Amino acid sequence: MIYDVIIIGGGPAGLTAAVYAARYKLSAVVIFAEEGGLAATAHKICNFPSYESISGMELMQGMKRQAEALRVPLKNETVTRIKLDERVRVLTDRGEYVSKKLIIATGTKRKKINVKGEEEFYGKGVSYCATCDAAFYRGKNVAVVGGSDASLNSALLLSEFAEKVFIVCRAGSFRAEPAWVEAVAKSNKIETLFNESLKEIQGEKFVSKAVLESGKELDVEGIFIEAGAEPSHLILKDLGIMIDGKGYIIADKNQRTSIKGVFAAGDITDCGLKQIVTAAAQGATAAYSAYRELLSEKTSSS
Amino acid sequence: MIYDVIIIGGGPAGLTAAVYAARYKLSAVVIFAEEGGLAATAHKICNFPSYESISGMELMQGMKRQAEALRVPLKNETVTRIKLDERVRVLTDRGEYVSKKLIIATGTKRKKINVKGEEEFYGKGVSYCATCDAAFYRGKNVAVVGGSDASLNSALLLSEFAEKVFIVCRAGSFRAEPAWVEAVAKSNKIETLFNESLKEIQGEKFVSKAVLESGKELDVEGIFIEAGAEPSHLILKDLGIMIDGKGYIIADKNQRTSIKGVFAAGDITDCGLKQIVTAAAQGATAAYSAYRELLSEKTSSS
Repeated sequence: MIYDVIIIGGGPAGLTAAVYAARYKLSAVVIFAEEGGLAATAHKICNFPSYESISGMELMQGMKRQAEALRVPLKNETVTRIKLDERVRVLTDRGEYVSKKLIIATGTKRKKINVKGEEEFYGKGVSYCATCDAAFYRGKNVAVVGGSDASLNSALLLSEFAEKVFIVCRAGSFRAEPAWVEAVAKSNKIETLFNESLKEIQGEKFVSKAVLESGKELDVEGIFIEAGAEPSHLILKDLGIMIDGKGYIIADKNQRTSIKGVFAAGDITDCGLKQIVTAAAQGATAAYSAYRELLSEKTSSS
Repeated sequence: MIYDVIIIGGGPAGLTAAVYAARYKLSAVVIFAEEGGLAATAHKICNFPSYESISGMELMQGMKRQAEALRVPLKNETVTRIKLDERVRVLTDRGEYVSKKLIIATGTKRKKINVKGEEEFYGKGVSYCATCDAAFYRGKNVAVVGGSDASLNSALLLSEFAEKVFIVCRAGSFRAEPAWVEAVAKSNKIETLFNESLKEIQGEKFVSKAVLESGKELDVEGIFIEAGAEPSHLILKDLGIMIDGKGYIIADKNQRTSIKGVFAAGDITDCGLKQIVTAAAQGATAAYSAYRELLSEKTSSS
């Protein structure tokens, strides 16, 4: 079949685009690598409208159920290539999908910091997801590397399990929401090392030590790397879509990209504040723009 | 006291701005005329992320509780004037508020259609809010005037109570989400009159008849006018803020207006798709922009 729209990405932007597409009676399919996207890994979300506090997993399950209730097929497949001619053709590890319009909502992936030991100890003490792994560190010492919202959020979650949490922050202060900064300052389990960076991760079979640039050593069994994110768009390289200097897709306020019929929404775009609610809004707008474009094509051809 | 930011409006944009302002540790106050704004009057919302279906009232109560949990004062007062000099001064029917930044999120209000009888029978059969008044028309005949999402939504709600619902639509087809169009088509209680418009509302003490331009008469006891909305900005007239041809405040993608220190979010702005999720996202962005501006002023003055 030829879908009206293929949506790539299963996070807030992709799932909201799916809901809007369905409400506009478009035939849509969502293809995603990670259920719920990065948002699903957030341990606690306090700023999504109408919820005082909700886990990323719960919130994204809600969005998924909403798309499923509208009978949008959700395909957990890996996109291997996108071809654009008269139609959009998306090839995955399982098959091929064809559509008239495309919405790219592939989000971002965690950045590596490329220090010695990072790759060797991945899954053996090195983690990029406190939400996923915090509970394994009950009563142990851990370090969080980074000074962003995500870093502080992870440190706070870890402090609910670990004996001691070090934050290794390259800068002299955090670049995070003041609410998180205050919560970290109040915790007696968290110690922050400013103007420090991680040089090497050591251990036998598992992590046992973090060596800092200053020479200081931390005895920790877990190291959580929160170095931010970068656009996930391996699949985009042959498309010729316009991106900014950091690799984010340039989208206008209607979420149109430089290619007609191709829209982008969420963290993969160059659109300002990267939050769940803004990604969702962009997903809604992308679906609306696709719907409008289809409608005008139908009208002009009839 | 001098607040960091005053937020005018208690709908999705205003309340989300409040939540974000609080998360950024700004001192904020929300001044609003209608609790929850227009969104609170929607009978059923199926496209707000993570909820399969929720009433406007419930959703907005959630947003209100979230702002209250962060201790943002919510003031149900009527703004009478805004003065801008070195500070923002907002005068209300109850007092005066002073701040460094201003976020305008006053939304839209329902349009009147100015037909004979509209004013005379207001509250006596003429209504602008099906959510508020539908239950009074159990077993009766009613008419909905308009062909938008809101009109169809109202007709569907009314069909749960009324014996018969006429939709009087000026155009030859609806300008609404296909999902609503299909639901209306499936209802055996709803009859649509296309290419028709309301000429006069008649009755004794209460509405008993709708007279259409074609001369056709409908025996109805309720007439629900869904003629869309217009910006609510009486209070803005002395500000000299830049607006578009329809009266909406021009805002950039950071929600900045033509006046430094003044931001706008939600339906009052000229920003594309008007949905609850987009208004909320704009509220978040406006608060972020205000926070950034305050931060840069603090840094440059210290």
